Amino acid sequence: MLTQAGCLARRKRLWEAVPESIEWVLIADPRHVHYFCNFWVHPLSFSTCERGLLLLERSGAATLMADNFALRSAAPTDPFVDKRIVETFYDHKHSVINRDHVLFNAVKKISDTVYGRPGAVEAEWLPVGARELLGLDREAHSVSHEPEDPVRKGDLVDLGSIVRHLRRKKEPDEIELLKQCMIATNAGHARAFEIVASGVTEVEVYSEMLAAATKAAGRAIVMYGDFRATNAEVPKIGGLPTEYQLQSGDMLILDYSVMIDGYRSDFTNTIAVGGPSDDQRMLYDLVTAAMAAGEAAIRAGALAKDVYRATAAPLNASPYGATFTNHAGHGLGLGHPEPPIIVPESSDTLLAGDVITLEPGLYVEGIGGIRIEHNYLVTKSGYERLSNHDIRLE
Amino acid sequence: MLTQAGCLARRKRLWEAVPESIEWVLIADPRHVHYFCNFWVHPLSFSTCERGLLLLERSGAATLMADNFALRSAAPTDPFVDKRIVETFYDHKHSVINRDHVLFNAVKKISDTVYGRPGAVEAEWLPVGARELLGLDREAHSVSHEPEDPVRKGDLVDLGSIVRHLRRKKEPDEIELLKQCMIATNAGHARAFEIVASGVTEVEVYSEMLAAATKAAGRAIVMYGDFRATNAEVPKIGGLPTEYQLQSGDMLILDYSVMIDGYRSDFTNTIAVGGPSDDQRMLYDLVTAAMAAGEAAIRAGALAKDVYRATAAPLNASPYGATFTNHAGHGLGLGHPEPPIIVPESSDTLLAGDVITLEPGLYVEGIGGIRIEHNYLVTKSGYERLSNHDIRLE
Repeated sequence: MLTQAGCLARRKRLWEAVPESIEWVLIADPRHVHYFCNFWVHPLSFSTCERGLLLLERSGAATLMADNFALRSAAPTDPFVDKRIVETFYDHKHSVINRDHVLFNAVKKISDTVYGRPGAVEAEWLPVGARELLGLDREAHSVSHEPEDPVRKGDLVDLGSIVRHLRRKKEPDEIELLKQCMIATNAGHARAFEIVASGVTEVEVYSEMLAAATKAAGRAIVMYGDFRATNAEVPKIGGLPTEYQLQSGDMLILDYSVMIDGYRSDFTNTIAVGGPSDDQRMLYDLVTAAMAAGEAAIRAGALAKDVYRATAAPLNASPYGATFTNHAGHGLGLGHPEPPIIVPESSDTLLAGDVITLEPGLYVEGIGGIRIEHNYLVTKSGYERLSNHDIRLE
Repeated sequence: MLTQAGCLARRKRLWEAVPESIEWVLIADPRHVHYFCNFWVHPLSFSTCERGLLLLERSGAATLMADNFALRSAAPTDPFVDKRIVETFYDHKHSVINRDHVLFNAVKKISDTVYGRPGAVEAEWLPVGARELLGLDREAHSVSHEPEDPVRKGDLVDLGSIVRHLRRKKEPDEIELLKQCMIATNAGHARAFEIVASGVTEVEVYSEMLAAATKAAGRAIVMYGDFRATNAEVPKIGGLPTEYQLQSGDMLILDYSVMIDGYRSDFTNTIAVGGPSDDQRMLYDLVTAAMAAGEAAIRAGALAKDVYRATAAPLNASPYGATFTNHAGHGLGLGHPEPPIIVPESSDTLLAGDVITLEPGLYVEGIGGIRIEHNYLVTKSGYERLSNHDIRLE
């Protein structure tokens, strides 16, 4: 879970990034409410898709607005706020009204706090109805003038982009959550080696990996990604598993994420069903060389496009480089993908605290597809590798 | 999946419910975008938490707005719309901007269609930024005047509440999705009988049920609910599983939902770990009698509070009735719980097409907790039971 120290550190950085004239901000993206106060509605709950809103004040005060069932479906630990405004959606005795209006009943109760004082709203997520109830007419927001530097002075405060920029530098509690994701994902990859065989379906492989990852996490997780077999005829395909039965010669690309408390891993292995051919081994050697070359380029201050080029070089030196049309990697955290984006035309620079992936792949007609991937925490001198799964064909 | 016929039938009912003066509606709740056009971002995808918006016109035209990666992470079938406005978030070549602003770039392109024409927006979910970009000043919406009858004439069009009301009557494609959920949930309950034993953890039971439900569905599913052991000391507890090891004498309440394409089952069985005691059998007989009594009261036109009373009567006639403090059941579909709410003070009336649960339970210190639950489609003459799992203690 996110910690109080982490939430306070993120709020401190937020207030440093927001113009001094702004006295309050209204956070509305559910991911960002979570980011700043550890309140999030569990996606594996009956309240999935419901929301809370968070009012932060420069004085330090934090106020959460939510309905009683959203709070019940939230993370098991208390949100780190000074005040909760919780309106009753359901009491097991009476009929219910529109659940969104219950949240709005909570919103009404902050109107005295915000009205007439300079503030900013997250216009990308704040519902029209909530703003209307607050009678706002002096709040700052920007939705159409995304600046190069998300911190702008004046009336345009691109709050959503400011928070997205802050998200790149992970605090220790975020790193800890990511490491929990890695442990679960490792377990899923390990289970795959035991279960993958000719005749087994993609869904069966997926369900066994999911069970193993869940047991390793010790709690319910969200797992998504690519669990599809490639082969000589269809060397590139992705997405959730189907009832296709694996066949000898298939290359099963297992590129997946485990999400815990909104944060996620994203790492890959490819298994050669029935054992690899010489050609498949040759592709494996190429992507392994690509990953090593990419890793050597990772450090704070490196240009993302240079990391891309380093990764791509061993592939481009082979006859199959033209099949490597995807990114070499990307940032990871509350979103996927997110900056820095490791692509040929990237304008991003790696920052200390970024968490990134490297995922070289080749997709060759007549042989099949392969992709491997690790996750890294970018440091001043290089990186700490967060994923520790076995990358091997069988 | 939702079908074209189903989406068109739902839109027809929408236009019948919206005042005639309204020429367009802008749907913003992701569940409602899905409901009307079969576009939803898969919660088990890297785009989880992202959104699309849907413009519906009385003329029949439907326009979807989304980013290219949200579309890629959507249901495998095409959305049923006449026009898609898809803006590029990511092309694997360039850095990315704020993903919300990509959606807003799509929104800008409907401004000529809506500006100056009378329409309504879903103010509970439409972001402030989207409305601003459209320059709307004549659209109707209501967020604070929820009417008894959600269809209001005049300027106040409570679009969110209108759609929530429409959702009660399930179309055939929705029933079909619910039946798929039931099949998967049945398989999870069946697996529980095989795996539950003293020494096994709640998480292990959950992970095996999840694997079995996934295999039965033949695809990735979302599963949530209560997977907690009760006992003589703690007869009532709920939520996601922990690493608690089951002990002989525990009553494991498995009350859970499988979600497929946003729709969900919700049915329960309770297993007596190590076999039931006489007291546990006695509680089982009571809740079984309660369920039978509740079922006898289900039919379109019945008052929800009367179904509650029928269900509660056998429990209240026992010494343990005071522990039955929860609802007797609730509506189910895209939300959970949703009307009709089967509680003592309910103002709801059962409608043909409602899908509901009945879930009598008792939570007795010195014995343990028990809850059982089935799901029903309400019909004019009674009901069709949708769940078919074994309800038994061992």
